Amino acid sequence: MSQEIRVDFAHRVVFTRGLFDPANRVLVDSLRGGAPRAVAFLDSGLAAARPDLESKLRSSLDGRDGRPSLLEVSIVPGGEVCKSDREVVDAVVTSVDRHHLCRRSWVIAIGGGAVLDAVGYGASIAHRGVRLVRIPTTVLAQDDAAMGVKNGINRFGKKNFEGVFAVPWAVLVDSDLLATLSDRHWRSGFSEAVKISLLRDEAFFRQIELDADDLRQRRLERAIPVIRRCAELHLDHIANGGDPFESREARPLDFGHWSAHKLEQLTSFELCHGEAVSIGIALDTQYSVELGWLPQQESDRVANCLLRLGLPICHPSLSDPRLLEGIEEFREHLGGKLTVTMLRSIGAPQDVNELRSDLISRAIASISSRSTEFSKT
Amino acid sequence: MSQEIRVDFAHRVVFTRGLFDPANRVLVDSLRGGAPRAVAFLDSGLAAARPDLESKLRSSLDGRDGRPSLLEVSIVPGGEVCKSDREVVDAVVTSVDRHHLCRRSWVIAIGGGAVLDAVGYGASIAHRGVRLVRIPTTVLAQDDAAMGVKNGINRFGKKNFEGVFAVPWAVLVDSDLLATLSDRHWRSGFSEAVKISLLRDEAFFRQIELDADDLRQRRLERAIPVIRRCAELHLDHIANGGDPFESREARPLDFGHWSAHKLEQLTSFELCHGEAVSIGIALDTQYSVELGWLPQQESDRVANCLLRLGLPICHPSLSDPRLLEGIEEFREHLGGKLTVTMLRSIGAPQDVNELRSDLISRAIASISSRSTEFSKT
Repeated sequence: MSQEIRVDFAHRVVFTRGLFDPANRVLVDSLRGGAPRAVAFLDSGLAAARPDLESKLRSSLDGRDGRPSLLEVSIVPGGEVCKSDREVVDAVVTSVDRHHLCRRSWVIAIGGGAVLDAVGYGASIAHRGVRLVRIPTTVLAQDDAAMGVKNGINRFGKKNFEGVFAVPWAVLVDSDLLATLSDRHWRSGFSEAVKISLLRDEAFFRQIELDADDLRQRRLERAIPVIRRCAELHLDHIANGGDPFESREARPLDFGHWSAHKLEQLTSFELCHGEAVSIGIALDTQYSVELGWLPQQESDRVANCLLRLGLPICHPSLSDPRLLEGIEEFREHLGGKLTVTMLRSIGAPQDVNELRSDLISRAIASISSRSTEFSKT
Repeated sequence: MSQEIRVDFAHRVVFTRGLFDPANRVLVDSLRGGAPRAVAFLDSGLAAARPDLESKLRSSLDGRDGRPSLLEVSIVPGGEVCKSDREVVDAVVTSVDRHHLCRRSWVIAIGGGAVLDAVGYGASIAHRGVRLVRIPTTVLAQDDAAMGVKNGINRFGKKNFEGVFAVPWAVLVDSDLLATLSDRHWRSGFSEAVKISLLRDEAFFRQIELDADDLRQRRLERAIPVIRRCAELHLDHIANGGDPFESREARPLDFGHWSAHKLEQLTSFELCHGEAVSIGIALDTQYSVELGWLPQQESDRVANCLLRLGLPICHPSLSDPRLLEGIEEFREHLGGKLTVTMLRSIGAPQDVNELRSDLISRAIASISSRSTEFSKT
């Protein structure tokens, strides 16, 4: 006998500003209807840059008038290091036990994508899932990572080897939290916006091209609509793409990611995810040219846009022969037949089931020369 | 903005006999359509009782004619001990890495409920979920545990504190595997059948009553329909109960379980799960009498049926004052308001939101005296 099992989740995303200001009700309103207990895990980078946050958080969740009591605020290391072992995951599970949180209680994760991944994983395995509220604090987390349904850590030198699919209870996006980001982490968040525009929305790509200099110069009024549109497109893909938990082979949102994941690993995460994705986008866009699909001038547009955003399109590790191992690791993580998305034109993706090493070499040579050329202009 | 996310799973259950015989195609047919790589984890109890199994398994999964290659057969400790730490879970995750299994490859878990829980958890977190095939080898696993969508381990002295909801790829039920079970583990599997009959199907309860002596005497032709009906009712509840991943408060299948989980813990798992559930059923059935809901003679029928099945209805730990802590632990694991199922009549459950300690004491006193009385008959 076989039974179909259908599971429905609600994925709530709220865009706001001044989330932690006393007058802002978004956080408190998002934590209604559950148990009155919460714990929070705060990215160390943000905690240092915004020492006011912890006390603001504590005063807004004081257990009065139906608000949950915040029983713990833990500072966890930001960046990929928090995904390198079980420490953060286990801190979350232990906290759920120690503070007697039930499945309807709240784990609040505040930080960049790596912190959201590790804390979210801990929240997902305690009692088989405590309610997770993600508060993304980097451009990359706000426009991409926090919208996803993935949680996990790295193992065996492989990105996200261990983890679960789990839908967060709510994602609260506060653009003001981006103010203290380093320029490098500001910029690196826009590669995912370029990526999804190339896959889904040619007009959105043109908008990013148009605004590239303003985005690089951190003009928030230009950045907010880009971040929001990118988040919407990601969320739409997850909710309406028909395969939220990736049981099929195609994974179009991973355009440019087979090499990106490997480059992060080959550089011992010296390249951050957004930078590696930028290089991966440039590479796969040029690969689409080498395939005879995309006109060269379109690949140039993409490379130029990335460079104007202050993002790299090239790295010495591209010539590391181990780069090609990334193809099999990418396939193995997802399973089944290798399925990689390339571009027919901007906004029109198409899957391929093999990557030819000769074309990869030509694409790398091409973007390497172009990288020098563009950086002179 | 809020997006509904719908995830569909297929839960395949096949009842067979002689699963590992060369002529039996069930296993091979269940492993079609994925990647050609598999690893298996085998309950030590079964491995000792059936030394032929490993080689039979290896010869049926030899990588030829579209069959997967079995790359590893690991023997893991059976019983609750395999859920006491991360060892088995991590062995599975490490095996997935070592043998380059992808998400469409196969992890085969062969054993009792505890082995299925721990191995299933490992399979669920590697690559966010490798395909899991459960082969339950105890009555309890065949009629209950293997049908569920829960995977996990115990932590902090709490049953199933850490884990995930995940739907297995397939569950293959072979009655012949029950032949080597100890009498104790044979018998203890029928408490879950009594439980679900009390909740869902009065006629099924009457059938179990009628067959109780035959079941105790291990008459397989009587046992198979009981195991199958119990499995069907469990699967039906999960698929059609509207809440497969337990986001709501009510958990009707956990009738008798608030005390059962605590009794297992208080006796350091000297009581096995099925025995503890039998006592829990007797207790909550008598509690339903103390509530004024159920006639005493109906509770007597239930207690008598359990005793005739060779199951306990009483234990000295029932008088341990820590027993009542089980109520809060039960609530906390599930979350929200305490919701415990009691019986209006056999086949007609109703939830309550509190448990009165005076009524619990009276119910314990009543089943203790009855236990002595019945055991004399």
